Amino acid sequence: MRIPGISDVRNHLIAEPGKAFDLSSRDSADRNLFEDKSVAKTSLKKDAAVINELKDILYAEKKRSILVVLQGMDTAGKSGTIKSVFAETTPLGMEVKAFKAPSSNELARDYLWRVHNAVPKKGHVGIFDRSHYEDVLVVKVRGYASPEDVERRYDQINAFEKHLSENGVTLIKCMLNVGYEEQGIRLRERLEEEHKYWKFNPADLDDRALWKDFMAAYETAVQRCSTEHAPWYIIPADSRTRRNAMIARLVRGALEDMDLSWPGSDYRLEDFDFS
Amino acid sequence: MRIPGISDVRNHLIAEPGKAFDLSSRDSADRNLFEDKSVAKTSLKKDAAVINELKDILYAEKKRSILVVLQGMDTAGKSGTIKSVFAETTPLGMEVKAFKAPSSNELARDYLWRVHNAVPKKGHVGIFDRSHYEDVLVVKVRGYASPEDVERRYDQINAFEKHLSENGVTLIKCMLNVGYEEQGIRLRERLEEEHKYWKFNPADLDDRALWKDFMAAYETAVQRCSTEHAPWYIIPADSRTRRNAMIARLVRGALEDMDLSWPGSDYRLEDFDFS
Repeated sequence: MRIPGISDVRNHLIAEPGKAFDLSSRDSADRNLFEDKSVAKTSLKKDAAVINELKDILYAEKKRSILVVLQGMDTAGKSGTIKSVFAETTPLGMEVKAFKAPSSNELARDYLWRVHNAVPKKGHVGIFDRSHYEDVLVVKVRGYASPEDVERRYDQINAFEKHLSENGVTLIKCMLNVGYEEQGIRLRERLEEEHKYWKFNPADLDDRALWKDFMAAYETAVQRCSTEHAPWYIIPADSRTRRNAMIARLVRGALEDMDLSWPGSDYRLEDFDFS
Repeated sequence: MRIPGISDVRNHLIAEPGKAFDLSSRDSADRNLFEDKSVAKTSLKKDAAVINELKDILYAEKKRSILVVLQGMDTAGKSGTIKSVFAETTPLGMEVKAFKAPSSNELARDYLWRVHNAVPKKGHVGIFDRSHYEDVLVVKVRGYASPEDVERRYDQINAFEKHLSENGVTLIKCMLNVGYEEQGIRLRERLEEEHKYWKFNPADLDDRALWKDFMAAYETAVQRCSTEHAPWYIIPADSRTRRNAMIARLVRGALEDMDLSWPGSDYRLEDFDFS
């Protein structure tokens, strides 16, 4: 069994910019890339190590950054992805930002204000656990903003992400596509397994009841905001191991594309006295 | 060869609160705790794994936090410590904050403002790479504040740290005690090894020229601010492996003392429908 190449992974998972996007055509249990689970494990382990190495050069260079955006319904595995893909990565130069319901201080500004504020520093890898996409997902489904406001946001988000990408931020946007049935199993687990109790939130069931509305909102968001500078990848998320392996391939690919190298020195040894 | 117990490590490294502290009596090459380097390696590896496990429970509990304060002269190994001690720790729930020269926005407030702002969230492990102690170290040595202002800061820092500790933050303050000679070797390395070029800053040699003043400032800071609620530990830092192993023991010890357990559940499985 062979580990799929990075461009194969991208081609298989991308929502093609400018093309119609049909979420229902994406199988949350798709195993085309990693049929064999053990291959996914091996691939993840290798990629996690390379990610750690390249991240150190990115950190030394301090010119550009990576921003991994993780979106998905509850239990889709946003935290699990962070833990696995960055299992080999020390916290130095990493920034994880979880977006919760906005505070009154955040609501006093436009919805992208807190997001811009959380963009990773040059040299860092940032991870968004949820993101500005909530402002066209839950906000749309629950009607927290008017339809006209939501409608304007897709273009605003594209402009914002274009701005970031033109200023040295490589975005990797992943929709963790978990199936309705699999979510049911995972929510149950949170009341069955002691070390998962803390994750259970009855409100998650309210979102589950609106599944179709959420899927429609995801479909629109991906369709409207998958762009050349920041495409969306739809990750089959019913298998945790394969999900992690696929995202690790994407992150490694982004780092490799940056063509990183250790910075040179402006100084000469003989000009200094270390005695 | 035996791994030294956590209380042995603490007793050997602590600057006893309320007692006179003589920095020159602390050997930067001290190998009493880990004579054998391979034992240090084994100890570090074990502790790093346990730290990762316990940190997950801390994260789930979301009530308290850990704050590791790393201080030391250039090359003492602040970054190296973070990379090694937290080698097994995923970035989820970790916050690394490097304190640089304050911005004009930060200087517009008192010196603890930006520090308070960077205190880790409940459930998180925060690491300060440099800290508020710079305000009684470089600030004192370079005269960036008046002697009267600096003098008042020791008690202010103690009050601030007491406040944090009473509000669920466990502080682990480590002075990475590198020797003058060893620093010379390490600064040279930064111009000799390609992947270290980026770390070289000629200004580090200016601080080196003031070594005695810095050591005096460290001695006073440790003497005045090693308290029952937030003691200072003086880590012999000439050996990187042993330094990492010692700090890992301290971090693991702090997590173990918190007596962490997975939160219980307020909900019953039978009250919910997951179909």
